[in-house]
Amino acid sequence: MLGYLGNPRETINTWYPALRKPAYNPPDWIFAPAWTALYATMGYSSHLVARVAMETLSEPKFLVARAALGIYTAQLGVNLLWTPLFFGKRNPRAALLNIGVLGGLVTGMTWMFSQVDELAGLLCVPYLAWVGFASYLNYSIVKLNPGDGVDKTQ
Amino acid sequence: MLGYLGNPRETINTWYPALRKPAYNPPDWIFAPAWTALYATMGYSSHLVARVAMETLSEPKFLVARAALGIYTAQLGVNLLWTPLFFGKRNPRAALLNIGVLGGLVTGMTWMFSQVDELAGLLCVPYLAWVGFASYLNYSIVKLNPGDGVDKTQ
Repeated sequence: MLGYLGNPRETINTWYPALRKPAYNPPDWIFAPAWTALYATMGYSSHLVARVAMETLSEPKFLVARAALGIYTAQLGVNLLWTPLFFGKRNPRAALLNIGVLGGLVTGMTWMFSQVDELAGLLCVPYLAWVGFASYLNYSIVKLNPGDGVDKTQ
Repeated sequence: MLGYLGNPRETINTWYPALRKPAYNPPDWIFAPAWTALYATMGYSSHLVARVAMETLSEPKFLVARAALGIYTAQLGVNLLWTPLFFGKRNPRAALLNIGVLGGLVTGMTWMFSQVDELAGLLCVPYLAWVGFASYLNYSIVKLNPGDGVDKTQ
């Protein structure tokens, strides 16, 4: 099926017919339709097997777990940005926006984790509670420090 | 947690203490152990979720399907080499070795396909049967053409 080496015409017209064949050698015309059918069934059977593999990768629990781990990574990045915003930039307003986004991500993560593994979901609850409390604290600091909210002297 | 921007010492010693805090603001010492515990539970809960994802990827049917598709690719490559060996190189002996390897791969593939999907396995049976017949035919041609087995004139 791959490109022939040598002289294909001479091979087919002279060399192959001259080879001695056993009595049960089928007529030449049978090989092309036989292989067409065999390649077709081969391809279809591999499709059936690939579909089973795809079904595994489409299981709801797997999809939720994979998405939840994506949100986990995202919330961790947002979480780690709070300190540079609040203390680094001395910008409690930006930090409040950050922690608001964080609260949304952690809420979604907690729910998705609980769908995949009950304990994993429960273990997120203290974190969610703390982010809620920290959001309120951040909000209070913004309100109590209208001038110092963003430090202009830096 | 990321590197601070600005002047960290002055931020911690002067700016932050000077901010007005609400009455419910916890003592400063509480934040480090709180976050240590929260990051630890966060990490452990994500491990639980990742383990569920990994369990899905370790399901026997998925592993067999993935391995079977690897063997499918390998046997297809070996299959496509038969024609260049037999007709291209005019080397029935090398082609016989090739088809022997092919028979082994297709036998394994047929069994694995049948474990994943019964129809997929059944669809391999004509192919396996044909490879068996073709192996016997190739063997007979080698035996009947001891001199012409490898064409030295090419």
